[in-house]
Amino acid sequence: MKDQLIEKIMEEVMKKVEEPKTEAPKATPKFCGMTEFVGTGIGDTIGLVIANVDPSLHEVMKLDKKYRSIGIIGARTGAGPQIMAADEAVKATNTEIISVELARDTKGGAGHGCLIIFGAEDVSDARRAVEVTLKELERTFGDVYANDAGHIELQYTARASYACEKAFGAPVGKAFGLMVGAPAAIGVIIADTAIKAANVDVIGYASPAGGTSYSNEVILFISGDSGAVRQSLIAAKEVGVKLLGTLGGEPAPVTVPYI
Amino acid sequence: MKDQLIEKIMEEVMKKVEEPKTEAPKATPKFCGMTEFVGTGIGDTIGLVIANVDPSLHEVMKLDKKYRSIGIIGARTGAGPQIMAADEAVKATNTEIISVELARDTKGGAGHGCLIIFGAEDVSDARRAVEVTLKELERTFGDVYANDAGHIELQYTARASYACEKAFGAPVGKAFGLMVGAPAAIGVIIADTAIKAANVDVIGYASPAGGTSYSNEVILFISGDSGAVRQSLIAAKEVGVKLLGTLGGEPAPVTVPYI
Amino acid sequence: MKDQLIEKIMEEVMKKVEEPKTEAPKATPKFCGMTEFVGTGIGDTIGLVIANVDPSLHEVMKLDKKYRSIGIIGARTGAGPQIMAADEAVKATNTEIISVELARDTKGGAGHGCLIIFGAEDVSDARRAVEVTLKELERTFGDVYANDAGHIELQYTARASYACEKAFGAPVGKAFGLMVGAPAAIGVIIADTAIKAANVDVIGYASPAGGTSYSNEVILFISGDSGAVRQSLIAAKEVGVKLLGTLGGEPAPVTVPYI
Repeated sequence: MKDQLIEKIMEEVMKKVEEPKTEAPKATPKFCGMTEFVGTGIGDTIGLVIANVDPSLHEVMKLDKKYRSIGIIGARTGAGPQIMAADEAVKATNTEIISVELARDTKGGAGHGCLIIFGAEDVSDARRAVEVTLKELERTFGDVYANDAGHIELQYTARASYACEKAFGAPVGKAFGLMVGAPAAIGVIIADTAIKAANVDVIGYASPAGGTSYSNEVILFISGDSGAVRQSLIAAKEVGVKLLGTLGGEPAPVTVPYI
Repeated sequence: MKDQLIEKIMEEVMKKVEEPKTEAPKATPKFCGMTEFVGTGIGDTIGLVIANVDPSLHEVMKLDKKYRSIGIIGARTGAGPQIMAADEAVKATNTEIISVELARDTKGGAGHGCLIIFGAEDVSDARRAVEVTLKELERTFGDVYANDAGHIELQYTARASYACEKAFGAPVGKAFGLMVGAPAAIGVIIADTAIKAANVDVIGYASPAGGTSYSNEVILFISGDSGAVRQSLIAAKEVGVKLLGTLGGEPAPVTVPYI
Repeated sequence: MKDQLIEKIMEEVMKKVEEPKTEAPKATPKFCGMTEFVGTGIGDTIGLVIANVDPSLHEVMKLDKKYRSIGIIGARTGAGPQIMAADEAVKATNTEIISVELARDTKGGAGHGCLIIFGAEDVSDARRAVEVTLKELERTFGDVYANDAGHIELQYTARASYACEKAFGAPVGKAFGLMVGAPAAIGVIIADTAIKAANVDVIGYASPAGGTSYSNEVILFISGDSGAVRQSLIAAKEVGVKLLGTLGGEPAPVTVPYI
């Protein structure tokens, strides 16, 4: 009986211990009482504001003089979801995207973390942009499929705005999509699949040695008719998830797919 | 008795939990029924082919017009083993190495992942190159010694071909070797050891800020008489494994040493 | 009773398993009997020397002819602590800092590993510099506060020397400080806080896409009156630790804070 018991416990324990660490764990909402703190989100994302950026910092950050206030989005895991979320925020608020930087991160994963700066003349605008971004993350993590070996990410917008333009060179106002495959080899296949699936314009291609921060990803950026872009992305997703599955467990979406 | 039982169980559990994650876990062979899929290998390596690369992808990937088909090798863990394996594939098939890119990866380890593209006029050649590469991996992971703190990697070929030339600047047709130490400090020592151990030509040196993708490695590339190259590598290995052991457990080879 | 027992054991086990992996585990001192080996330290740091660097290695490492001997510090986790420690070593010994390279590392964390080379005419000087560096690490890891989501690092010296000058552009002989926030967003806030807290000179700013090796950090370098620099750093720390805590557990110092 003792052995049986041990076995049962071991089983329970290993189940708990081996639970696949999703690459983008849900942040438990915490607060810290600072006026600079706006909130947190999926992927170790934090949202912050500075009402009056100190002139010396303004200078070393090379910010435009006209922005007294900045909104800040930073994350360990993910750049695509945060940038797409920031794109919605720019549409919804009186702010501009000042910079988008990609760290080679994802907490040991194959991809990027990010640092996004919004500029605003008024702190309430900066704060609002950060709030919208954090809220949108729930959606934009919907088509991130991850397992222990890598991830597939799809993003889509019917009308790209300035965050997508800044980060990806997307034509503003047009339907835009991106697809990421990690490890990068899978990204090559899904790029080919996507282009063949519908009549879309290829506006960019990024790989470990060019266009990424040495992440293990191939990323394709597409634009065009909104139906075609979606069709492309869906074709890419199907192939990508299948291929990624050959290297590990069944890749599961981080939240709820939206494309 | 209860306490004893708990203790015993805790012991069992911790043993299981603390098992050193080897940095290059063996892939369990899986299949996915796609014609693009060739297979998987050690180090989360995946092998893929595209029979007819879409012209738009051809363009953004800057491929030579003459390659209708490409073979693709991608991995989360390892670049050396995959490149050396690809070198054998190039010798054995009617393909060329189009590009070798190093991602800063290894799933939280100190080294690289990779993306290797073979070009071929015929898809069967591309597929064959990928198959040979995947098969050779079993051997080329033989002199990768890893523990929790880093890794030592040795690679050797009696006759370097075009993958080694493309990736490492190796003189084609001559004996060639490389040695990697991670953390990088160990790489400096084994480089010095190797050069002193035999009369070899130093053809390159890579470090975190130059020649790597910011990996925590120092890599030395050597060429020369085949006996001398091997002697150098063996000297480097002995020292490297000893030094790496001071930072963690006994570094063990991923498969079976071949040098 | 069986269920109760299982529950109790599960609790124990999960406590053990979930213990936050500090990003800079203490190295257990090991020895390896090689003359090149000096010792190990926190953060998977290893200290090594080469008495007579081989001429071919000398050349590819681009070392100055006058240094026959080199001291080597390498680490998986941390660059700031090692560089600050090396700064003390340079003051205390007859050596020079030849190079400081930052790997994108920290074993899956958001920051850097490092490779630091000391040059000396005599091996005993090189060895002494490495010894001092390893010893100082205990102190310089004192204001590194880490949790699962990132880290806050503060460093301070009343009188910067050549390691700080080489790595950070610090004015030699003056009080110098740096603060790191990871994820990078937090670094922006603490930079602003620090500058507003006291009258200091901003001498540099590094972010994922500029000045770091694509790490997920924002780093601010400050100089000035020693009291002002310390006051700045303390203000930055308080804010940084609070913000980092919103993303995970309470960030704890790796050793004992010294600022």
